[in-house]
Amino acid sequence: MSGSIYGQIFTITTWGESHGAGVGVVIDGCPAGLSLEASDIQYYLNRRKPGQNCFMTARNEKDSVEILSGVFEGHTTGAPISLFVKNTDQRSTDYDNLETCYRPGHADFTFNSKYGFRDYRGGGRSSGRETIGRVAAGAVASMILSNLGVTVQAYTKAIGPISIAEAEYDFTQLSKNSLYMPHKEKSGLACAYLSDCIASQDSCGGIIECRIDGMPVGIGDPVFEKLDANLAKAILSVGAVKGFEVGDGFAAASLKGSENNDAFIVSAADPAAKKIIKNTNHSGGVLGGISDGSAIVFRAAIKPTPSISRTQQTVTISGEETELVIHGRHDPIIVPRAVVVIESMAAITVVDALLKNMGAQMDYLTRFYR
Amino acid sequence: MSGSIYGQIFTITTWGESHGAGVGVVIDGCPAGLSLEASDIQYYLNRRKPGQNCFMTARNEKDSVEILSGVFEGHTTGAPISLFVKNTDQRSTDYDNLETCYRPGHADFTFNSKYGFRDYRGGGRSSGRETIGRVAAGAVASMILSNLGVTVQAYTKAIGPISIAEAEYDFTQLSKNSLYMPHKEKSGLACAYLSDCIASQDSCGGIIECRIDGMPVGIGDPVFEKLDANLAKAILSVGAVKGFEVGDGFAAASLKGSENNDAFIVSAADPAAKKIIKNTNHSGGVLGGISDGSAIVFRAAIKPTPSISRTQQTVTISGEETELVIHGRHDPIIVPRAVVVIESMAAITVVDALLKNMGAQMDYLTRFYR
Amino acid sequence: MSGSIYGQIFTITTWGESHGAGVGVVIDGCPAGLSLEASDIQYYLNRRKPGQNCFMTARNEKDSVEILSGVFEGHTTGAPISLFVKNTDQRSTDYDNLETCYRPGHADFTFNSKYGFRDYRGGGRSSGRETIGRVAAGAVASMILSNLGVTVQAYTKAIGPISIAEAEYDFTQLSKNSLYMPHKEKSGLACAYLSDCIASQDSCGGIIECRIDGMPVGIGDPVFEKLDANLAKAILSVGAVKGFEVGDGFAAASLKGSENNDAFIVSAADPAAKKIIKNTNHSGGVLGGISDGSAIVFRAAIKPTPSISRTQQTVTISGEETELVIHGRHDPIIVPRAVVVIESMAAITVVDALLKNMGAQMDYLTRFYR
Amino acid sequence: MSGSIYGQIFTITTWGESHGAGVGVVIDGCPAGLSLEASDIQYYLNRRKPGQNCFMTARNEKDSVEILSGVFEGHTTGAPISLFVKNTDQRSTDYDNLETCYRPGHADFTFNSKYGFRDYRGGGRSSGRETIGRVAAGAVASMILSNLGVTVQAYTKAIGPISIAEAEYDFTQLSKNSLYMPHKEKSGLACAYLSDCIASQDSCGGIIECRIDGMPVGIGDPVFEKLDANLAKAILSVGAVKGFEVGDGFAAASLKGSENNDAFIVSAADPAAKKIIKNTNHSGGVLGGISDGSAIVFRAAIKPTPSISRTQQTVTISGEETELVIHGRHDPIIVPRAVVVIESMAAITVVDALLKNMGAQMDYLTRFYR
Repeated sequence: MSGSIYGQIFTITTWGESHGAGVGVVIDGCPAGLSLEASDIQYYLNRRKPGQNCFMTARNEKDSVEILSGVFEGHTTGAPISLFVKNTDQRSTDYDNLETCYRPGHADFTFNSKYGFRDYRGGGRSSGRETIGRVAAGAVASMILSNLGVTVQAYTKAIGPISIAEAEYDFTQLSKNSLYMPHKEKSGLACAYLSDCIASQDSCGGIIECRIDGMPVGIGDPVFEKLDANLAKAILSVGAVKGFEVGDGFAAASLKGSENNDAFIVSAADPAAKKIIKNTNHSGGVLGGISDGSAIVFRAAIKPTPSISRTQQTVTISGEETELVIHGRHDPIIVPRAVVVIESMAAITVVDALLKNMGAQMDYLTRFYR
Repeated sequence: MSGSIYGQIFTITTWGESHGAGVGVVIDGCPAGLSLEASDIQYYLNRRKPGQNCFMTARNEKDSVEILSGVFEGHTTGAPISLFVKNTDQRSTDYDNLETCYRPGHADFTFNSKYGFRDYRGGGRSSGRETIGRVAAGAVASMILSNLGVTVQAYTKAIGPISIAEAEYDFTQLSKNSLYMPHKEKSGLACAYLSDCIASQDSCGGIIECRIDGMPVGIGDPVFEKLDANLAKAILSVGAVKGFEVGDGFAAASLKGSENNDAFIVSAADPAAKKIIKNTNHSGGVLGGISDGSAIVFRAAIKPTPSISRTQQTVTISGEETELVIHGRHDPIIVPRAVVVIESMAAITVVDALLKNMGAQMDYLTRFYR
Repeated sequence: MSGSIYGQIFTITTWGESHGAGVGVVIDGCPAGLSLEASDIQYYLNRRKPGQNCFMTARNEKDSVEILSGVFEGHTTGAPISLFVKNTDQRSTDYDNLETCYRPGHADFTFNSKYGFRDYRGGGRSSGRETIGRVAAGAVASMILSNLGVTVQAYTKAIGPISIAEAEYDFTQLSKNSLYMPHKEKSGLACAYLSDCIASQDSCGGIIECRIDGMPVGIGDPVFEKLDANLAKAILSVGAVKGFEVGDGFAAASLKGSENNDAFIVSAADPAAKKIIKNTNHSGGVLGGISDGSAIVFRAAIKPTPSISRTQQTVTISGEETELVIHGRHDPIIVPRAVVVIESMAAITVVDALLKNMGAQMDYLTRFYR
Repeated sequence: MSGSIYGQIFTITTWGESHGAGVGVVIDGCPAGLSLEASDIQYYLNRRKPGQNCFMTARNEKDSVEILSGVFEGHTTGAPISLFVKNTDQRSTDYDNLETCYRPGHADFTFNSKYGFRDYRGGGRSSGRETIGRVAAGAVASMILSNLGVTVQAYTKAIGPISIAEAEYDFTQLSKNSLYMPHKEKSGLACAYLSDCIASQDSCGGIIECRIDGMPVGIGDPVFEKLDANLAKAILSVGAVKGFEVGDGFAAASLKGSENNDAFIVSAADPAAKKIIKNTNHSGGVLGGISDGSAIVFRAAIKPTPSISRTQQTVTISGEETELVIHGRHDPIIVPRAVVVIESMAAITVVDALLKNMGAQMDYLTRFYR
C-alpha cells in the first residue's frame, strides 16, 4: 500500500530507496511525439543535486539519468518512459545506530509501526533521494508545458526568519545565488543565518513560492479535482512540507471581501479582443478550482531539517528511552534543493489537468473526431 | 470531467446544483453492518444549515435527508448508499443579473470559460449547497470512526482578525455559540466584527482548525498518498479554502530543528507497556505522511465570502465592463457553516486511509485469511 | 467495497436495490453542451422494460427516469448528471422464503458470506434492476457517440440451441420481434423453444452480439487498457454473462495464422485518399488493443436464468439441506432484455476510450492549447 | 495514455520495448514482510522463456531479473518493488522492412495511427517481451497467494484442433511436455500438428485453461468489480487473447437453468461444521461476481501467431499496396509461453481482490483497529 503512483492521465510511479540499487520513475501517459533526450532531464536533476553550496551535504553523487524505455529516435512514443538513476555513494556505516533508534522528526517510528520493520539505511523510502523520480518526471512535464507556452518557476521566499516581500523580488538573482532567492542582500543574510545554524548544531526551515505563467483559462475541475486541491496534495506529498496556500492564502482569512475580491476588467492590450482579465490576483489564479487566466501563485512551508547534530532525546525500537547523536551527512536546510521538487510536482499536476480538460465540451470532441 | 468523485476505497460521488431538483451523494465502499439511520445523518446536516444565527442567510431549507439505498433493517449492506436532499427554497429571481455578469471572486467566469456556458442560478455546481453531499457522507464516515474510537472535531479558530490562541481554548463553549468558537469573549468580539462587516456591506474570512483524536499509529502511506497530503486535497477541495497547514504549519518555516522536532518518550501511563509517544506535537500527528499516534491537527484558511452588497467592478459575458450589485441572500462569513464541512472531509479521508492500511503487512493477510 | 463505479473519465456510479426506494446512476465527466432530455434516456430504458412479450416477467413498472442534476436549458453542463428511477411495483411477499434459503445460481450465498447478511428482497443489489442505471448512462453515452458518427447495435444471436449465422442476418427484423433476433424464422423457433422451457419449468441462455460502427482508428491503449480488455470487463460485469469474445474469438483458437490474419488494402472507394482498410475482419476491429477502423464485433454468453420454478436442492442460511421452490415473477430467459444492457456498457466503454485518446499525441495538445 | 498500470491496491506498472534497454515492472502496494528473493521470480520467468522447445523462437535471452528496490534483508518492505530484466539479444536487422510496412494481424497500423509514429523494432511495446513485467509481478502475487493457501495453475487445453476434455486431464503430464498439456498422447499430436504448421509456413492458436484453488468465499465485488469481470479484463489485456469464459462459459448459452444451476449442499467431510459447498461447478467458482468457494475455472482463446513466413498482402505506411515476407524469428504458436502469463494475470487480479475484501464488513475494521 505504498502509494507511489501519482496522476490520473499523466501518471508517474516512483520507486527506490537511498541505499538500494538506485531510484527511478515510470511515466505513463506522456503524449507521443515530444522531443526528449536524457540531457533534458539531467538539467533538472542537477538543480536538486547535493554539494552545490557550502551548506549542503557533501554526498557526492552524479545522479546521472538513463532513459530505459518510451523514447525512440529522440521522441516519446506514447509508451511508458522508464527513467533510472543509480545510487553510487552509499556510506551506510554512517547510519548504524539508526537500526535501533527512532530519529525525532523522521518517519522511522511510523514506518516501523506501519510495516513491522524498515530499511533503516539512510531513511529508506523516506529519504530525500525519493524526490529524484519526481524531478525526472517533472522535467518531462515541464517540457510538455514549454511546448504549450506554460512556465513553472519556483524560488525560495524565506529561509528561517529571512523573508522576501513580493515587492522586493529580483528574479535576475535566482541564477546568481545557490539558495534560489530572488534578492541579493536577503540571500546574503540567509547564508549568514545558515552558518549560525550549523555553528549551533541546528537546522532551519523556509518557504518556497511557485508561479505558473501562461495557463489557459478553464483548467481544473470543480468540486474534488480543483486545480488548487490537486496542487495542495502534490506539494504536501513532498517530505517536510507542512503547509500550502494559494493566492492570498492564510492572509485572506483576515481580509474583507472587498479587499480579497479581484475585479474583472477588459484587457487594455487589445480592447477590441475583449479579453477578460482580473486587475488584481488575490485568488492566486484559481477561482472555484479552475484557472482564471492570472498567474497561479502558491507557497509551501518547509519544516526545519529534522537531522541535527546536537544530542536528542528518543526511544529505541525495543522501547527504552535513550539519547541520540546523528552522525553522517545532513544539511542545515533542504529548502534550496526542494525548489525544483516543488516545481516538478506543480508541472506534473498541471499537465494532468490540461489533458483532462480536453474533453470538457462536446464541441471539442466533435471537432477532434469528425 | 467534473471530478465529483472522492476517495479510493471509501468513495463518495456528489451531485446537484443549488437550483436543480436537489443535491445528493452516493457512498460506495462503506463496510457492511454499520448501524445507520437518516436521523444520524440529519444531525450533521443540521450543523451546516443556513439561518442558524443572525449573520447567516435566511434561505429557509429543511435539508431533510432521505436514504434511497444501501441500508436494510437499520444497517449498511455493503451496497452503495444513495443520500438525497431536495431543494425546496429556490428564489431564482434573485439571481437574474448573474446570467450576464461575472461576479468577482466567484467561479462564474471560469465555469463559462471551461464549459462554454453555465447554470447561472445561484452558483450552480459551485454553490455552497454542493457541500451537503460532503456532509451527508461525512456523517457516515464519522459513524465508522466512532466505532473505532476515532473522533474528528473542527472549530472556528479565527474570524477576520479575531483569533484564539491554543492556550485559550475552552471547548465547552463550542455548543454555546453559533460561530463554533472555543472561547466565550472572542466569540462575542467576532459577532461584533461581523455586524460591522454587514454594516459596511462587506464580508470576512477566518480559520478553521480540526483535531483528530484516537488515530492508530501507521495510517497513511509514504510518498504520494501521505495522510496529510490527502487531507490537504480534501480541504482545499472545499470552496473558499485558500490554505492548509498541519501541526506547526507555516510557523515551522521559521523555527529551528531543535524547536520543531518532537522527542520520543515512553508513555508514563503504563511504563511496562513501553508505549512510545511524543512529548510534544509540532508534527501535528503525522511523520513522513503516516500518523504518529499524536492528535492530528490541521488548519484551513477560508477567504471572505465573495458575495458582498457593495457595488463591484466587473465584466459582462459579452465582454463589456460594468458595475455589479449582488442582490439576494448571502452571508458576511461562511466559516461557521464550513466547520462541519471541514470535519466531514477529514472523516472521509481518514476512513479511506484506515481501509487502505488493512493490507499493509503480510501478517495481516495471513491472520485474516487463514 | 461494492465497486459500483465504472470508467475513468466518463464515469458512472450506479446505486439501488430491487426493493428500495429506487435505482439510479450518477454520470460524472460528461462533456458539457450535449443536448439531453429525459425522453432521450427513456427511449433506452423502455427497451429493457419487463413485460414486453409473453415470456417476460409481469412486473409492471413504468421505470420513468428523472434528471435530477447536470442539465440546464436542455444541455449538459459538465456537472454530474444524476438520474433516478423510482421502484413502484414491489411485491416482497413473493420473496419470503429467500430470507432463509440460498437460491442455486444466484448470489445469495456469496453476498451473505461477504457482507455478513443481505437484503434478501428480490436479489437486492444483484437484481436485474441494477442494470437500469447502466442503461440510463448508456443512453447518454450513445448520444455522445451519435454526435461523433459512432453507432452501437446489439442483438440476440442465439437463444438456447437456436443460433443465427452471420450470413443469415436480417437486421430489418430487429424491430419486428420482441427477442431482438435478426432473423424471422429463427425468432419464431426461439419463441417455441421458450414456450417449451416454460412448460418444463425451466429456463435457457443465449448469445448477444454487439457491433460498433464508425469507430476512428487508434482508440484504446496498448497493454492493460486495451479497448477489448475494457469491453470484456464491462460485459462480464453484467450479471449472468459467462463469456466474452471479440472477432473470431474462441473460433480463432483452431484457425491458422493464414486464415485469421486480415490483409491490409487501400480502400477502393477513393484510391487517391490512400485510406488503409482491412479486407476481412477476423480481428473484430481491434489490433493490439487499439481500434483498427473495421467494425468492432464482440459476443457475450448469457447463462440460463437461475430462477426456475421446479424444485431445487439447496441449503438454508443456518446450514440445513432443504428443497426450494421459487415463487414470484421470473423470466425463462433474460437475453432479450440484456441486449440494451450490453449495448449500454459498450457505449460507455467506448466514450471513455475516445476521451482518453484526445491526449495521445503532443500535436493534439499543441493544436488544442496554442 | 498508454495504460500500463494495472490493479487498484496491489498495482503493477510495466514498461519496456523489445529493443530498448530492457523491460521491467514496478509493484506498488505489496504487503510488507513477504519473503522474496530474485530466484523466486526467476523461476516464473524461466517458464515463459523462448527456446524451450523445438517450436519456439531461437532468441537466446537469459531474462535474468534484478530486484532494484522494495526488498530489505530478504523481505518486502512495503515500498515499491522495481524489477528489471535487461534486453540482451537484439537483432534489429531482422526487422528492417517493418519500418515501412504494416504486418497483418499485428498492431503496427494501429500504433502508427494512434501515436503518429512507432518504435518498429520487433513490435516495440506490443512485443511479447512486454509480458515479462507481468510474469515477474505475477510471481510476487503467486507467492502472496501461496502464503494464503491459494494456488493458481494454468495449462494448455487446446492447440489448434487438438483439444483435451476435462475428463481426460492428467496433470502429472504438465511438467513432462514443453506444451504444458495435461495429456500425454494429445501433446504428441499437438507437436505433430505444430510441425505441419511450420512446414506450411503457418501458425496456429489454442486455448489456455486456468484453475484457482483454495479461494475463500466472498472475494470480488458485485456490479462493476466482479471477480470474473476483472479476470476477463486481465486476460484480454494479454496480447493475442480473443476470448474469455468462466465456468461453463459459452456452453452455458445453450444449457437449461436446471442443467446450469449448481445445487448447494452441506459438505460431507465434516457434517457438524455445516460447511456449505456446491455439488457441481458450472458457475466456475463465481456467483454474482463473488467467489463461491468452488475452484475458479476460466479459459482464454489465443489467436494464431500473426507472424507467418508465407507471403502476405499488406500496405506500406505511405499507403501503397505491397507484399510482405516476414523474416526473423517467430514461433508457430505462443500458447505454451502464454500459460505462465495467464497464470500471472490471474494471480495479480486475485491478490488485489483479496486486499479489497478486508474492509467489507464493519466487524473486520472493529477487530483490526480496536
